[in-house]
Amino acid sequence: MDQVQIRYTNKKPSLTKPIFIEGLPGVGNVGKLAVEHLIEMINAKKFAEIYSKDFPPQVFINTDGTVKLVNNEFYYYKALKKNQRDLVLLTGDYQGLSAQGQYELVELILDTIESLGVKEMYTLGGYGLGHEIDDPQVLFAVTDKKMVKDIKKLGAVFRKNEPGGGIIGASGLLLGLGKLRSLQGVCFMGETPGYLVDPKSAKAVLTIISKITGVKVDLSQLEKKAKEIESIAQQLQEIESQAKDRPDELRYIG
Amino acid sequence: MDQVQIRYTNKKPSLTKPIFIEGLPGVGNVGKLAVEHLIEMINAKKFAEIYSKDFPPQVFINTDGTVKLVNNEFYYYKALKKNQRDLVLLTGDYQGLSAQGQYELVELILDTIESLGVKEMYTLGGYGLGHEIDDPQVLFAVTDKKMVKDIKKLGAVFRKNEPGGGIIGASGLLLGLGKLRSLQGVCFMGETPGYLVDPKSAKAVLTIISKITGVKVDLSQLEKKAKEIESIAQQLQEIESQAKDRPDELRYIG
Amino acid sequence: MDQVQIRYTNKKPSLTKPIFIEGLPGVGNVGKLAVEHLIEMINAKKFAEIYSKDFPPQVFINTDGTVKLVNNEFYYYKALKKNQRDLVLLTGDYQGLSAQGQYELVELILDTIESLGVKEMYTLGGYGLGHEIDDPQVLFAVTDKKMVKDIKKLGAVFRKNEPGGGIIGASGLLLGLGKLRSLQGVCFMGETPGYLVDPKSAKAVLTIISKITGVKVDLSQLEKKAKEIESIAQQLQEIESQAKDRPDELRYIG
Amino acid sequence: MDQVQIRYTNKKPSLTKPIFIEGLPGVGNVGKLAVEHLIEMINAKKFAEIYSKDFPPQVFINTDGTVKLVNNEFYYYKALKKNQRDLVLLTGDYQGLSAQGQYELVELILDTIESLGVKEMYTLGGYGLGHEIDDPQVLFAVTDKKMVKDIKKLGAVFRKNEPGGGIIGASGLLLGLGKLRSLQGVCFMGETPGYLVDPKSAKAVLTIISKITGVKVDLSQLEKKAKEIESIAQQLQEIESQAKDRPDELRYIG
Repeated sequence: MDQVQIRYTNKKPSLTKPIFIEGLPGVGNVGKLAVEHLIEMINAKKFAEIYSKDFPPQVFINTDGTVKLVNNEFYYYKALKKNQRDLVLLTGDYQGLSAQGQYELVELILDTIESLGVKEMYTLGGYGLGHEIDDPQVLFAVTDKKMVKDIKKLGAVFRKNEPGGGIIGASGLLLGLGKLRSLQGVCFMGETPGYLVDPKSAKAVLTIISKITGVKVDLSQLEKKAKEIESIAQQLQEIESQAKDRPDELRYIG
Repeated sequence: MDQVQIRYTNKKPSLTKPIFIEGLPGVGNVGKLAVEHLIEMINAKKFAEIYSKDFPPQVFINTDGTVKLVNNEFYYYKALKKNQRDLVLLTGDYQGLSAQGQYELVELILDTIESLGVKEMYTLGGYGLGHEIDDPQVLFAVTDKKMVKDIKKLGAVFRKNEPGGGIIGASGLLLGLGKLRSLQGVCFMGETPGYLVDPKSAKAVLTIISKITGVKVDLSQLEKKAKEIESIAQQLQEIESQAKDRPDELRYIG
Repeated sequence: MDQVQIRYTNKKPSLTKPIFIEGLPGVGNVGKLAVEHLIEMINAKKFAEIYSKDFPPQVFINTDGTVKLVNNEFYYYKALKKNQRDLVLLTGDYQGLSAQGQYELVELILDTIESLGVKEMYTLGGYGLGHEIDDPQVLFAVTDKKMVKDIKKLGAVFRKNEPGGGIIGASGLLLGLGKLRSLQGVCFMGETPGYLVDPKSAKAVLTIISKITGVKVDLSQLEKKAKEIESIAQQLQEIESQAKDRPDELRYIG
Repeated sequence: MDQVQIRYTNKKPSLTKPIFIEGLPGVGNVGKLAVEHLIEMINAKKFAEIYSKDFPPQVFINTDGTVKLVNNEFYYYKALKKNQRDLVLLTGDYQGLSAQGQYELVELILDTIESLGVKEMYTLGGYGLGHEIDDPQVLFAVTDKKMVKDIKKLGAVFRKNEPGGGIIGASGLLLGLGKLRSLQGVCFMGETPGYLVDPKSAKAVLTIISKITGVKVDLSQLEKKAKEIESIAQQLQEIESQAKDRPDELRYIG
């Protein structure tokens, strides 16, 4: 097995001007939630798996008792309507554990999508605010300056010096290394508290992706999940707030 | 020396439809205890050693004063009776230190057992509960769904979403990477508190392995060790409980 | 992509007896500040970028919304006057994350500057004192004993056993590995508290570099930045000192 | 530059049945102190340096202002008298930082000494006790059982299960990996508190090495250093003991 390795589980699809959309685990799991939801809604087909020696040495156990080695997975979708675009999608269990593992994973992803004819990438992630947010906006960054105007029209926002630390991980690296190969790309970052998985932020990101791909997606399930998470978050806050209200003396009862 | 390297200390054995059984250090050392006990009881023969640059740079000192470079060791057993199976066994001092080291070690193990004609693997480990357990059960996970029914008949149990984090380390990786090579395998995980080495859990696992291999193993030594460990555990608990009973004031005597 | 990789963004320059000057991030960011300021003042031209799998997997976001993969950058300057020297300059976002990454980065830098005809290197860094310093001096270390006398004449100082731990990172490694290739070099280390970026120390270092290169550099911007940083440092000290003055009782108001 | 690399600074020596003696930094720096002292006393000649990408990216600054890239160094000594043995000696600034770096360093050392005709190795280190020791003994471990008797005659002692964790680092690995190449070796471990560098323990180790090599070494300098260290240790203890004697109340003066 090479350091990173692709394994085709189905015939490599033949696609027309496909768009690539990536969503791996990260802050608030925004990107992963968004792409997984999209895959499910449009019934995209898996065609390949990526394994890496820089993923944890781990298998998950499926509900039928079988094991699944942790990986990343490629899916495709063939446009059904005229205004739609063929899609290549990537999601997965992990990003690379080390800097080197990240670079190697992203190089393999870029090799693969280039061989499928991809010229346009959209990478999805979360922008961790560290505080609650009612109506998450979607920030973005691009490979080419001339794309900025069009992306703003889709409802995404650009704020100078945000995120201040740039983008760390696959979503940024796909753009950074892709740019060196003359691929065009946009990274969409949904605002998120970042404490818990955030379907609300994923929904905000998918709303924009929907406009780009021409693929309408039912977002009601994400809304439902978002309400469940909000309820959990509220309970956690109440517990914490009760703990604070209890006077200090009580803590020292002998 | 390669990254990982096998060194045959005896002629490679010629075996008939051998079963592979692995038990390396891990939670409660359940797998290692089980395989070491099995090797001793059936007088299995060592035929190879694995060295890895991802094991600690360490030698142990034998009781005769000689050093032993840390390694993993392969043993074999030739069936003596009709209902028995030829066995290939692996145990060792360490698993790989890094993710990459784990993948490389497991790939080498798989290469080796495939060259010996192995089609069936049983990997042994512990499932850490974090609390005491009187009668440890043995959980399992498989490479193929159709195996579930037969494994349940042996007395192993399957509980959905357990272990929640899947299986980390060689026992899981052998199944995950083995599955990609069309090898069949089962991971047996003996329930264990996980605080101390756990011969009781190892005994539970070996009871099942005995049914699969047709090899009867005297488990009385494991029972004896288990009682010793229980006695140690009880003493530790008593010390801890006495410390708790002592009133707080005593701790602040000036 | 190789482990470390150079990418020429412009034609490789043809230079006459060029001097190499390096300033990467480090203590007080002294070296990076100095070289970046020099590049700006003399309008040096970028000709190459270095990428490494041992840099963080990160892109920065430019003020126009485009991403920039973290890297190191080579610049050159052609002498305009008779007493000036052709220059090759290196600065960047990061040093290698691991020991191995550092060695590989420095080997690639040395390969590159040797191919440009460089025989003389000046590496710039900070010497962290851990306390305030009014008038930072510039310490140095050399590849060849016979250089010591000339370097002292430039105003740099040598103190036995300082820095006690030697030089860690690219500035030291360039000299250490360069010496094995018979390259001559000096490392200049500007004294710095090391708490914050230190333009005052960078100015001290650039004053010496100016004498070596024959290139006059306007240092007023560094002075201005230094005053801003001093003002910030003072404010931080005041906050800290107020916190200390507050009596302990106040901290325990219920 | 390879991962690890040897660089001959002098012609490779032609030696008769040479013995190899290693002492790298470790617990109490016992091995390094011993070999450095031996090299100095017998005026051994340096003939090679080892560099590794797994040493820290660091240069030391010599007292004349020149830099020295951290390394390991080989020395040799030609027997002057009939009862003496030709020697190959190794000391250095660091051991490898990672497990892999350790293995690669030791493989290169073994390649080198085998090419010099070495069949016998003595590796020197400290055995950290964690408490003071008046008269440090020297423990040992061997590659071959039949050596035990002779080594005991030299005054070294063997205690079952000590050191309990075996030997970690180059001194152990040289024996472990050397044994796989049929090299014979002994590791001598001088007992040491392990808190500070320990010339007394180094002296105990060298006394034995002197018997093996037939080379008489003046140990008075080590004795002198040992007294200095003891005086420092005593001062540290007094400071600590005074701190303990001060009643608790004094610590809470407002």
